[in-house]
Amino acid sequence: MSTIMFCLVNKTAPTTARRCLISHLRVFTRAAESHLPLSSTHSRSLALLPGTRWFSRGTSVRFLSHGTAGRSANGRTRRYILALSGAAAVAAAVAGLVANASHFQRAEMAQKAPRATGETEQEGDILERCKGFMSPPVTDIDVLRQSKGEMRTRMEMLIMETQAEFCRALEKVDGASFKVDRWQRKEGGGGISCVMQDGKVFEKAGVNVSVVHGYLTEEAAKQMKSRGKVLKGKDGKLPFTAMGVSSVIHPKNPHIPTVHFNYRYFEIEEEDGSKQWWFGGGTDLTPVYINKEDAFVFHNTLKEACDKHHSQYYPDFKKWCDKYFYIRHRGETRGIGGIFFDDMDAPSQEEAFSFVKSCARTVVPCYLPIVYKHLKDSFSEEEKGWQQVRRGRYVEFNLVYDRGVKFGLATPGSRVESILMSLPLTARWEYMHEPAEGTQEAEMLEVLRNPKEWV
Amino acid sequence: MSTIMFCLVNKTAPTTARRCLISHLRVFTRAAESHLPLSSTHSRSLALLPGTRWFSRGTSVRFLSHGTAGRSANGRTRRYILALSGAAAVAAAVAGLVANASHFQRAEMAQKAPRATGETEQEGDILERCKGFMSPPVTDIDVLRQSKGEMRTRMEMLIMETQAEFCRALEKVDGASFKVDRWQRKEGGGGISCVMQDGKVFEKAGVNVSVVHGYLTEEAAKQMKSRGKVLKGKDGKLPFTAMGVSSVIHPKNPHIPTVHFNYRYFEIEEEDGSKQWWFGGGTDLTPVYINKEDAFVFHNTLKEACDKHHSQYYPDFKKWCDKYFYIRHRGETRGIGGIFFDDMDAPSQEEAFSFVKSCARTVVPCYLPIVYKHLKDSFSEEEKGWQQVRRGRYVEFNLVYDRGVKFGLATPGSRVESILMSLPLTARWEYMHEPAEGTQEAEMLEVLRNPKEWV
Repeated sequence: MSTIMFCLVNKTAPTTARRCLISHLRVFTRAAESHLPLSSTHSRSLALLPGTRWFSRGTSVRFLSHGTAGRSANGRTRRYILALSGAAAVAAAVAGLVANASHFQRAEMAQKAPRATGETEQEGDILERCKGFMSPPVTDIDVLRQSKGEMRTRMEMLIMETQAEFCRALEKVDGASFKVDRWQRKEGGGGISCVMQDGKVFEKAGVNVSVVHGYLTEEAAKQMKSRGKVLKGKDGKLPFTAMGVSSVIHPKNPHIPTVHFNYRYFEIEEEDGSKQWWFGGGTDLTPVYINKEDAFVFHNTLKEACDKHHSQYYPDFKKWCDKYFYIRHRGETRGIGGIFFDDMDAPSQEEAFSFVKSCARTVVPCYLPIVYKHLKDSFSEEEKGWQQVRRGRYVEFNLVYDRGVKFGLATPGSRVESILMSLPLTARWEYMHEPAEGTQEAEMLEVLRNPKEWV
Repeated sequence: MSTIMFCLVNKTAPTTARRCLISHLRVFTRAAESHLPLSSTHSRSLALLPGTRWFSRGTSVRFLSHGTAGRSANGRTRRYILALSGAAAVAAAVAGLVANASHFQRAEMAQKAPRATGETEQEGDILERCKGFMSPPVTDIDVLRQSKGEMRTRMEMLIMETQAEFCRALEKVDGASFKVDRWQRKEGGGGISCVMQDGKVFEKAGVNVSVVHGYLTEEAAKQMKSRGKVLKGKDGKLPFTAMGVSSVIHPKNPHIPTVHFNYRYFEIEEEDGSKQWWFGGGTDLTPVYINKEDAFVFHNTLKEACDKHHSQYYPDFKKWCDKYFYIRHRGETRGIGGIFFDDMDAPSQEEAFSFVKSCARTVVPCYLPIVYKHLKDSFSEEEKGWQQVRRGRYVEFNLVYDRGVKFGLATPGSRVESILMSLPLTARWEYMHEPAEGTQEAEMLEVLRNPKEWV
């Protein structure tokens, strides 16, 4: 670990902030205790998340987060690291000990830091909102507080919120808990992966947040360029920030469809210092058996969210979705689609974000009613077998075509387990599998071969 | 089907040839009867293989094969199609009826056809050798007879023989039979896929032969170029012939390793009409648990075959194998390797072919002793689970990195089921799976992370 970042609230910090952090601490204790590696120098109740340790001395709460700072590519962290002074503080932090002097120094700096323009939310809102998350956000809370109005912060808060909302809803229906892993990317940034495996309802459920930054490699840049973005870097290097929430849920019951969603934001700095930004995302459904009512509910929920922003969004993004999730070598779509969009850099950053927010907030109402509806559906061994064959197709799409997976696997330092958590727990490849005519399996295949309008 | 090719032996054909074809007919009857679609115009005992029908009238035997001829890119089929005369004959063939006139005409032409240079084998050898195959070869037997000395013919005979030898050996150990599918590629050529699924010993066993020709697409050419071949086509088009035998065997018992082999031959015609040719191939083992004795037997058998040709082949191709079957995003090899080589166009075509022949003939002695040795090994549910996780890695390699799969999926008209028959029947992806220290699973992983010398 070459760089260390401090995020501290000392005894002189405002009481509200301190209270928030303490509640925050409680929220994370349960998830963290059961799963995560502990620092050998701290007891179980004090050391919580890998790369992040909360600990209490008297009434003060100290928060250390490793790894995201010091990347010169990131203006936010660059600005932040300036608040740190002295090699002594860095060395102390490495040892897990922080001198009180640096607490005071840091707290003072934070209060003097200029507010970002466009900030409309109340001081303390960031902390309050973080309490509901599955884990502290990827970016240091104090950094987020200082840059509240910036799109990167607003998007990170949205994806953290989406992750938490969805995970809680799934935990409620399943009864099992998500395993929460924080991870860091050596090259810059990190993420929070929430995975539930072999639950009562869900065979495998993954909800991942990542916030990464660094320089685009040539291979990764190629992936970007294939989306139509022409990017000019300084000496071929492109500083970037990419963040998103993505999820794939594979239920056990073949009558409950698999769902996938992903909402993401990119910023790339070009040679002349100008920034390109864009949003992307979508939500799509992959049933094993077709149910027209489910298909309507799913698509209609998405359509209503889209229509609030532009009447052309749903029809365009529905088509895009069918086109994107196409398994070319099979001549079939992965599922019954939903919406998909990319490279969204219009009409304005504010409006694009507002649309993405609407989409992210439909994730639960899109999917959970379908889960509850089929929760008690009985199924045969043959139906389970067909589900397994369809899961095989899911794997084929994700490994052969999915740009996110390709981008991830080709990006050095990316966390493979988080990228591939989208793969089902089990899958099957039968040679020359073709459902008999007139069966429900054949009906499903027909829809995958000829995408329909559902609304 | 735009073109039809005839391959006929009429009553005036030499007795030996007629006898051979009749025996041939008997050999194929069993495999064909149980699995393959029948022509509605012929009874079960007469119509045999899709795209190929043998039928007997009195003592004459007639053989129709659809689809490979008429590709102007292929000198062999172009030459052959010249032997056909008259639209009537074509129309008759489409109807499944052949006028005797065309029989005589064809047989005469065949006898007059010039012999290829370098022909050293006896007339009738081709027919004799075909009797042992799993199906008639992809290229029409008569065409093969006329071009006996050409490398394309010699290689097609070798891959057909290798397929048969390996399939028979596997059938013997399993007790189940291979399903034999003949398929044709609209753009030129076809193949023979032999698949055994859910046998007693083998979960999935696929042995595939393909002989395809046509023009390289830009995408496929790119795949080629990545191997270091610089190819100049006329208007970007490159006429090519590619053939090979490839196989992946996934046993049920986790103590019996998965084996893969592939031997292939390419010919590409460049802008100036000159031909580039090369061989490629290899055999590699993917155990679920490491067994040093098995590893030695496997590698040593390959080494002995290599050493007969060049002392540097085994060490070089062993290294190449470890490098090729590397799952970069996992930091581990797919298995314990074997040999792998590509772009072999030296020291001479004759010597390269002789080496490939040696390799192809080691397939059975490399693998079958290991299968027999572990046939009765007992295994636990945990061991089966670890096998399933390793199968997941196999899928990852094949879909993300394997050039053959990429080339296949990107080549229009290729037979997806034959390309993806290499995927296991079942696989598993567990989030963050990591074997405990000191276990046999950890030992296996250690070998995959740090490839060893076995001989």
